[in-house]
Amino acid sequence: MSQSTYTVTGMTCDHCVASVTEEIGEIDGVQDVVVDLASGAVTVTSTEPLDDERVRAAVEEAGYKLAS
Amino acid sequence: MSQSTYTVTGMTCDHCVASVTEEIGEIDGVQDVVVDLASGAVTVTSTEPLDDERVRAAVEEAGYKLAS
Repeated sequence: MSQSTYTVTGMTCDHCVASVTEEIGEIDGVQDVVVDLASGAVTVTSTEPLDDERVRAAVEEAGYKLAS
Repeated sequence: MSQSTYTVTGMTCDHCVASVTEEIGEIDGVQDVVVDLASGAVTVTSTEPLDDERVRAAVEEAGYKLAS
């Protein structure tokens, strides 16, 4: 089990949260995604440590950016 | 053919625009819905004049408010 927290910029509403949650949730091994809209914090729980670049790609697919 | 413009508050992103467009588009007789996110202006084209209360209900169903 692994947990990582990322910061995503550009989310403005619950629809944005849903899009990011859905895209990250499609990554292999992801078990849970919790997004805090106010801070942009996205906490991802997965069976194994995630490749940050896959997370970045998922966030960008949703239309947002990962803070570097 | 009738066209009315409403002001919707609370839309922050394209997902919000899509939600409002979809809900208003489900009203009988509506042919076209054009939303300007920056101003909140929603222009609705319909076969007959719309009941403003139906538009208000659709906007609220989407999770937003009609400016009075």
